[in-house]
Amino acid sequence: MFRVVILGAGNVATHLIQAFEKASNVEVVQVFNRSKKGLESLPFAGNSTTDINHLMEADCYIISVPDDAVQELSESIPFSNRLVVHTSGSVSLNELNSKNRRGVFYPLQTFSKERAVDFSVVPICIEAENSIDLKVLNELASSVSKSVYEVNSEKRKQLHLAAVFVCNFVNHMYQIGFDLSEKNGIPFSILKPLIKETAAKIENASPKEMQTGPAKRNDQNTIEKHLNLLEQPLQKEIYKLLSQSIQKTYGREKL
Amino acid sequence: MFRVVILGAGNVATHLIQAFEKASNVEVVQVFNRSKKGLESLPFAGNSTTDINHLMEADCYIISVPDDAVQELSESIPFSNRLVVHTSGSVSLNELNSKNRRGVFYPLQTFSKERAVDFSVVPICIEAENSIDLKVLNELASSVSKSVYEVNSEKRKQLHLAAVFVCNFVNHMYQIGFDLSEKNGIPFSILKPLIKETAAKIENASPKEMQTGPAKRNDQNTIEKHLNLLEQPLQKEIYKLLSQSIQKTYGREKL
Repeated sequence: MFRVVILGAGNVATHLIQAFEKASNVEVVQVFNRSKKGLESLPFAGNSTTDINHLMEADCYIISVPDDAVQELSESIPFSNRLVVHTSGSVSLNELNSKNRRGVFYPLQTFSKERAVDFSVVPICIEAENSIDLKVLNELASSVSKSVYEVNSEKRKQLHLAAVFVCNFVNHMYQIGFDLSEKNGIPFSILKPLIKETAAKIENASPKEMQTGPAKRNDQNTIEKHLNLLEQPLQKEIYKLLSQSIQKTYGREKL
Repeated sequence: MFRVVILGAGNVATHLIQAFEKASNVEVVQVFNRSKKGLESLPFAGNSTTDINHLMEADCYIISVPDDAVQELSESIPFSNRLVVHTSGSVSLNELNSKNRRGVFYPLQTFSKERAVDFSVVPICIEAENSIDLKVLNELASSVSKSVYEVNSEKRKQLHLAAVFVCNFVNHMYQIGFDLSEKNGIPFSILKPLIKETAAKIENASPKEMQTGPAKRNDQNTIEKHLNLLEQPLQKEIYKLLSQSIQKTYGREKL
């Protein structure tokens, strides 16, 4: 049985706790969070603390706090030579304080508190300083997910950057689509089958093969019409820049 | 039984023919296409012609050709006072020649020849000049889809513009994610669960509620790191502009 302490009470921490609670070989022995309020909102009935000096004995300490708080929290841990990992895509392993054995346990998914996540399909990227710790992280990750990857800090940063494009920026495209439809009295739901199909299309083909639309066709006439329809300057800029980038991808440099 | 003639042999025409072939109350009596080659590649065994003067008698003629070819093709039709519609999102009803009764039959989906489409969930936007023709289009659309909407030309243009954001631009974000992962020796497949979840999240919530990421959190440190990682100037520009737009959406104007 692996004994785990979670440090943090945000979206990732919440989903991680829920996933570990279902795993047969992992026990979340404690959750630490600076504020009591965060702890109270967690779906966790076990031991919890707001005092870093009261951390319990465990095989692995998982820091799941905002990126810019990881380093400081790792420094404030009172013990040494134990396995301490973080869950962040963009933070290096060596931003953790070196008094403990360091590692990374990065679940590559978008988490919202109110939405259940099937952790078994979430890729987990692990990294450690030695093969024994890597094995521990591999077993921990395998206890909740079928996809475990060993990824070093450099590659993980690139992966996190790619994730911003395919998740955060994609969601912003949905937001603009939402704005345009609602503004014109069209229910956003009419766009949902298209959104679903666009995501489904790249399951078995590369995005390049699946590209469609006016920019791909170099249909300048439709591009101009669309630019005239857009009222918000930022949306106009986005339309121009992304069309230009699509045209460049398919070998047409001019917009 | 509705008798339909399809004019065109592209992606939309192909999928439309296949959908109508499955409908019990519609018969595709003929397919017209200027080039014989296009006709030969169609999965259609019925009557076909490359001669516009040989069009057969039908209840509805569906023009499914590139946007900039719709008008000319509608002019070249030798008869008058029949129901002639097009399938384009961005072309007005009145770009069709007025010698015939005009209409629109716009399936809001992204079609690729090699990928099967479940037409029953594809929203079809219809428009006509009179209520009898609208009823015909409604029955035709209902024969292949559960989602039929009456949408006028103005709204349809806005909808098509919204579709460019949620489909074409989204796919381009996938493409950039693909490039970044492949360039760093990371299989693109690691990003697929994230892509799927990002699309699934907005099924029951608005995109605004579901936004995550460095720009949403105003995490300037991560934004700067990402900009430094990006080598391609256009990708850098896209990252900057979309982060700025997300920050503006959530009330933070400065990048």
